[in-house]
Amino acid sequence: MAAAAATGRLVLFVALVAGSAWAAQKEEHVATAPAIHALRPLLGSGSDLGVPCDSWRLAVEANNKRNWKTLPASCEDYLGHYMLGEHYRRDSAVVVDEAITYAEGLELAGNGTEVWVFDIDETSLSNLPYYAKHGFGTKLYNATSFNEYVLEGSALVLPETQRLFNKLISLGIKPVFLTGRTEDKRAITVANLCHQGYSGWMELLLKPIGFKSTAIVYKSGERQKLQDGGYIIVGNIGDQWSDILGVPEGGRTFKLPDPLYYIG
Amino acid sequence: MAAAAATGRLVLFVALVAGSAWAAQKEEHVATAPAIHALRPLLGSGSDLGVPCDSWRLAVEANNKRNWKTLPASCEDYLGHYMLGEHYRRDSAVVVDEAITYAEGLELAGNGTEVWVFDIDETSLSNLPYYAKHGFGTKLYNATSFNEYVLEGSALVLPETQRLFNKLISLGIKPVFLTGRTEDKRAITVANLCHQGYSGWMELLLKPIGFKSTAIVYKSGERQKLQDGGYIIVGNIGDQWSDILGVPEGGRTFKLPDPLYYIG
Repeated sequence: MAAAAATGRLVLFVALVAGSAWAAQKEEHVATAPAIHALRPLLGSGSDLGVPCDSWRLAVEANNKRNWKTLPASCEDYLGHYMLGEHYRRDSAVVVDEAITYAEGLELAGNGTEVWVFDIDETSLSNLPYYAKHGFGTKLYNATSFNEYVLEGSALVLPETQRLFNKLISLGIKPVFLTGRTEDKRAITVANLCHQGYSGWMELLLKPIGFKSTAIVYKSGERQKLQDGGYIIVGNIGDQWSDILGVPEGGRTFKLPDPLYYIG
Repeated sequence: MAAAAATGRLVLFVALVAGSAWAAQKEEHVATAPAIHALRPLLGSGSDLGVPCDSWRLAVEANNKRNWKTLPASCEDYLGHYMLGEHYRRDSAVVVDEAITYAEGLELAGNGTEVWVFDIDETSLSNLPYYAKHGFGTKLYNATSFNEYVLEGSALVLPETQRLFNKLISLGIKPVFLTGRTEDKRAITVANLCHQGYSGWMELLLKPIGFKSTAIVYKSGERQKLQDGGYIIVGNIGDQWSDILGVPEGGRTFKLPDPLYYIG
């Protein structure tokens, strides 16, 4: 029930934002015809003008673009369409379908030792309401305002990931959340996950306050501890390459789309 | 000159195929209106009908889809547009731009020890003329007919990769070809590379006939030998994840697009 309600909220949110901003944008383009032409390269039909935003996004997803701080300002409209329309959802669905096919094909030991690692932000929960108000990744990251948003506990479920999460539980594979969110955000994170319909995870691993190193070092270290504790990490899913690179990666890794920000 | 001529040939080839097959396709759609609607999901504007070919391609590029034998038959048209139109070229250009930015930022030792590993098929040379005649990856791989094609030595240059190749030489970084092509194809491969404008590589490493193991094992083993020989692999570019995974990967890896086939 909670999951269904959450999905409803996301759909509503998408409809609202799409309905207002894009209608306004369309009107503006009718009035200023040349702007339509200028938008073409952003939508994937050309490459002579501006940044080819679809190629830029592909380069991010295939880990060719690294250590970027913001996406090109000229791609804000393109990214808005991508994230709020059905394209992002569809790209996520194909990844999750693949993950479920893989999980269903596993031969489990039957003693409950298999776990699957889930990242949280832009993997299990979506911060799209925040990014929609802050230029879809075209503005520099602002830790203060983003933390305020996280503490609201209002991030939305990513329905495709929740579908995987629930399927794994039904198969007997235990979900473990492993997030770059710090330990002081445990209560609000649990509340946010519960409100968005997640339940039945085995552990929620948050980063110790003051931890000094990269996400790869932190996350692979935590996965090592899980392994040392006798668990078998059969799968690992995240939206950043730093979620899934670094030994031990897990039996198989899945990269969800995220063109909004980069964590190294 | 050779490079320019080769580029010209590729453009001509694209224009010919695009002009004939697509014009025919367009005419057919005018006559049978419902087919236009059925094609929509393949072109990225829907997800309810058929396979979402753009999401499928993204899942391949981000290494989410693995061990596939053919791409969905319903995606042949989509892939034809992608490969023969400018989209594939543009996606490749963004990867190469990133590689050049990285290479230009390197501090070289000045003693000529830095090398860059290039895969050949779908990285340095394009077999698109073959795949255009064989369903753009929707048909099962046929070793006999593909080998016949390779032995013609008529594969085309991939101009973006050649741009990187030449830039690296100008910077003092030595290109090394490392290919899954077998040793018996050395002469035709050298001839094909030369005819398509490549010159100045340090080594051409072909697979020993009868080598039994995966591409990852073979290629990482060869990279280890380069490193043991005192070379520093500063970069590594290929169209397959098996070109760039496996220790030592090289200082940085670049994944060129290739939705046509998978090598594990």
